[in-house]
Amino acid sequence: MVPRDVQTEAPKNHFKLTRVGVTGVKKPIIIKREEREIYLSATLDVFVDLPANQKGSHMSRNVEVINGIIEEGVRGTAHSLEDMSEKIAKLLLKKHEYATFSEVKIRADYFLERYVSDPAKKGMEHYLLIAEARADKVRNTFRKLVGVEVVGMTACPCAMETVRQMLAEQYPQYAECIENLPVITHNQRNRSTLLMEVPEGYDIEANDLIELVEASLSSPTFEILKRIDEGKVVMQAHQNPKFVEDVVRDILHRVLENYSHLPDDVVITARSESEESIHKHNAFAERITSMSELKE
Amino acid sequence: MVPRDVQTEAPKNHFKLTRVGVTGVKKPIIIKREEREIYLSATLDVFVDLPANQKGSHMSRNVEVINGIIEEGVRGTAHSLEDMSEKIAKLLLKKHEYATFSEVKIRADYFLERYVSDPAKKGMEHYLLIAEARADKVRNTFRKLVGVEVVGMTACPCAMETVRQMLAEQYPQYAECIENLPVITHNQRNRSTLLMEVPEGYDIEANDLIELVEASLSSPTFEILKRIDEGKVVMQAHQNPKFVEDVVRDILHRVLENYSHLPDDVVITARSESEESIHKHNAFAERITSMSELKE
Amino acid sequence: MVPRDVQTEAPKNHFKLTRVGVTGVKKPIIIKREEREIYLSATLDVFVDLPANQKGSHMSRNVEVINGIIEEGVRGTAHSLEDMSEKIAKLLLKKHEYATFSEVKIRADYFLERYVSDPAKKGMEHYLLIAEARADKVRNTFRKLVGVEVVGMTACPCAMETVRQMLAEQYPQYAECIENLPVITHNQRNRSTLLMEVPEGYDIEANDLIELVEASLSSPTFEILKRIDEGKVVMQAHQNPKFVEDVVRDILHRVLENYSHLPDDVVITARSESEESIHKHNAFAERITSMSELKE
Amino acid sequence: MVPRDVQTEAPKNHFKLTRVGVTGVKKPIIIKREEREIYLSATLDVFVDLPANQKGSHMSRNVEVINGIIEEGVRGTAHSLEDMSEKIAKLLLKKHEYATFSEVKIRADYFLERYVSDPAKKGMEHYLLIAEARADKVRNTFRKLVGVEVVGMTACPCAMETVRQMLAEQYPQYAECIENLPVITHNQRNRSTLLMEVPEGYDIEANDLIELVEASLSSPTFEILKRIDEGKVVMQAHQNPKFVEDVVRDILHRVLENYSHLPDDVVITARSESEESIHKHNAFAERITSMSELKE
Repeated sequence: MVPRDVQTEAPKNHFKLTRVGVTGVKKPIIIKREEREIYLSATLDVFVDLPANQKGSHMSRNVEVINGIIEEGVRGTAHSLEDMSEKIAKLLLKKHEYATFSEVKIRADYFLERYVSDPAKKGMEHYLLIAEARADKVRNTFRKLVGVEVVGMTACPCAMETVRQMLAEQYPQYAECIENLPVITHNQRNRSTLLMEVPEGYDIEANDLIELVEASLSSPTFEILKRIDEGKVVMQAHQNPKFVEDVVRDILHRVLENYSHLPDDVVITARSESEESIHKHNAFAERITSMSELKE
Repeated sequence: MVPRDVQTEAPKNHFKLTRVGVTGVKKPIIIKREEREIYLSATLDVFVDLPANQKGSHMSRNVEVINGIIEEGVRGTAHSLEDMSEKIAKLLLKKHEYATFSEVKIRADYFLERYVSDPAKKGMEHYLLIAEARADKVRNTFRKLVGVEVVGMTACPCAMETVRQMLAEQYPQYAECIENLPVITHNQRNRSTLLMEVPEGYDIEANDLIELVEASLSSPTFEILKRIDEGKVVMQAHQNPKFVEDVVRDILHRVLENYSHLPDDVVITARSESEESIHKHNAFAERITSMSELKE
Repeated sequence: MVPRDVQTEAPKNHFKLTRVGVTGVKKPIIIKREEREIYLSATLDVFVDLPANQKGSHMSRNVEVINGIIEEGVRGTAHSLEDMSEKIAKLLLKKHEYATFSEVKIRADYFLERYVSDPAKKGMEHYLLIAEARADKVRNTFRKLVGVEVVGMTACPCAMETVRQMLAEQYPQYAECIENLPVITHNQRNRSTLLMEVPEGYDIEANDLIELVEASLSSPTFEILKRIDEGKVVMQAHQNPKFVEDVVRDILHRVLENYSHLPDDVVITARSESEESIHKHNAFAERITSMSELKE
Repeated sequence: MVPRDVQTEAPKNHFKLTRVGVTGVKKPIIIKREEREIYLSATLDVFVDLPANQKGSHMSRNVEVINGIIEEGVRGTAHSLEDMSEKIAKLLLKKHEYATFSEVKIRADYFLERYVSDPAKKGMEHYLLIAEARADKVRNTFRKLVGVEVVGMTACPCAMETVRQMLAEQYPQYAECIENLPVITHNQRNRSTLLMEVPEGYDIEANDLIELVEASLSSPTFEILKRIDEGKVVMQAHQNPKFVEDVVRDILHRVLENYSHLPDDVVITARSESEESIHKHNAFAERITSMSELKE
């Protein structure tokens, strides 16, 4: 029996579609680096476009493509998540012969070793790896990006100065101490994201992006903090009080420092969201820009 | 004591920011219609841009603006959620005198009465209302949109035809019945969205959009279904088997039928996601387009 | 046509079931208080047990019962969410004549007006209302509870003392100031819950529970905080540094102060979870107890 | 500098606490099986109780214990997630010398290879592994459990019979076909859970529990389904129409078949939730029982 190919029949209403695909595909992925293998539990969304004269996209091909590329990865050719997203996007276009556009989004839990002052008290910190790729057959363009989401800490500079003034008025005898020491303020869990386009022929390490974002927060956070280290993290955060606006700008500043050799049209997204301890809502800042705009 | 205005100081790194604001602000909202008041529990995100020379946005003004407009709404001037988003976006620009752009996103639970065949067995079905507004001081543009998210049901047309062929081969004695009756297939919960820009001087009713989307699914769903009605819903879904692609196209078709009088540059987004019963992942289709493109 | 009652047929495997019902039913609810009507967008889970000899529970009756009681509420007889949960639990047992047990859980967004120091700067703060009821036909018992979830702020007392010592060692010239003023520490968003059984003949106001929990945090939080008020909230939080353990104990202490007239077998659950600003994980404390145990 | 041990000081309010600990700790875990290593991305909650006279639990010890046991696991001694939860629970009691009770909950994404009819079209299906352990120093008891959450498919037997009757009345000429073939009904994504206590000296394989649950659904689901296989899955689901009640009972039946050699006091929880395609809410069934009760 040859089952009827309902997908290739003509649809009742002839509209092309921007994106057709599968979302929430969970997959174990192995990334091969020189020194070691990295095991990731990833979630993938993949799409192609669909011409107006075709009823359906062949959905099962999407997962077949994902599996094929992951299999290749297992045999050792994928050395990064964005590399894998590139291979999937390109193969999607080949397998969906009617498509002119393909898009891939991957997110995966990721871990790196961190410690405050004593390597013996190191622990695995949790991050999110992001990779995306878009292939366009008509314009003959291909773009991919690598990204990271980092949870850290921000301390508010505005409340710090307000409290400094309040304390100085109330305790004139301690004026010098209040002037010179970090003052209490609200601080909170912050979630910051950096997405960087990776141009053909360049390589951007996710680990570097994580370090860059962590350095742009009031302080990174740690799973194990014995008392002295906890004190050090609190001190560091209060010596670097930052709005979400500051975090995004510091990320952009470091991107310019480290990646200004990248082509002008590289797209960069920096984002920071503070789960405000003094509010029930969040504070949010974002910049979507290109390398050339950043250099202005 | 006049507290220091840390926000207006110069930042260390001079980069303008695309969006600065608050997310996840929860608010009770009252919408006044001629016939009745609608009470909504809403979640709002609001943003403005920030120039390069200013350290921080005045975050508390965002919530003050939201509250001011909601208060006005309570006194009776807001007759829709998109109306409210418009007022908030415009007031944000006024209160953040340094901003050139503002953006508002609102989502709220919403309920409408529905029944299958007997008005005595009606119940309140749950929907999501969406409203967004963007004001641009530089280009002197203002755009707002109204949207709905509807949960319904899709039945797969491809599996239906495959099973029809399988049954016909296995049971040649029932060929006519198999040919003429709806055949078993996988069906599932589907989440479909329609976002429509509302041009100045036009009014688009969210209730109409909900009806439009419900009519584009294999079947709407209902909270109470006594047996006969349950059978009717199953019949209806199998008499209208649809891919997510079909749902999006049928939505677009109805948009053309009902809203072709809207200006050419009106932006329309239609989206459908089926929580596939035969897969652990979802099937997804989307069209982002304009009225003029749709008419092509 | 009389459709076949599949539910009442004998199941293949004869096991009784502890809970059978519907979850995630969304409903607009009106609570009638003397002074005003409260509009809630609620989510309900309702269950009954099922005897070993019956294949299925009549699921549609669950939503019919919910709707019936909500309709009654609309006509004015339900004056609290736990009242409504009681009525639903009792009617569930009546409508499922084969059931010996019923259970109802309701959660709803809730708002109360709050301000720090200036009533003109008041705003609506968001809370979660919880109500549960359980009816047992065999033991002839009925129990219901009212609960609240409150988002507020905790400041860590341990890090504060560690930093105090670190600063005192580093800045001996400021010893007195460091000794007498609140010192920097990590603080964060905290989510605390109090669930109180409501015995027959007693009334417990959810608003009182919200106040009780807010008073047990380092500080409540506010949607609008102009600078001076922001400073006051930061000061208050640092003058009341609290572990999650302290929050739970302070809640229990206030429960004893305010509700010791309640019967001995009243069950009380107090819970506090801090979304630690210095960690990526949360800190958690909980006590599940009875009034008599609490008095020990 | 020896930082002050704030945790061991006397609290203001003397109440013991049921659970104090950390939640949402993310960790990469390696399980060593004879044939291979399994890499898991896990989320852990761990708790101990706290006596009335001690202000705080030493939270950092919780993560140190987790890390210590995971390190051991990496060196090869943990051969299952419940094994790891046992080691963590026991070490928690040792490290928190004031605690009389400890509790550990672990959840992790998990994958197994599956195919419908052609091993060449196999794919990795996603499951959730669950492990819990509780140690009680006072009663000198220790209990652990292993569990799985499986996403699959249910087809409704009641709607099938209603539709069969409706079709039979409407199409008397097809009576025999309608009587003998599976009839259309609503089917949907279902999430079913089985938690089994693992008594000392026994071993329960999570893979066996996953197979047991999958066999109890109308059909398991698959990530890749070429047309014929999709038809087969639809056929299988409609030849095994099941309520959530049936799924739970069939799980219990298989538990009795496969695990009746386990001691009488072994606790078993079986749960099934169908994301109903014809409703916006879910259908739910659960049995919490012991091996001896099950044998009755």
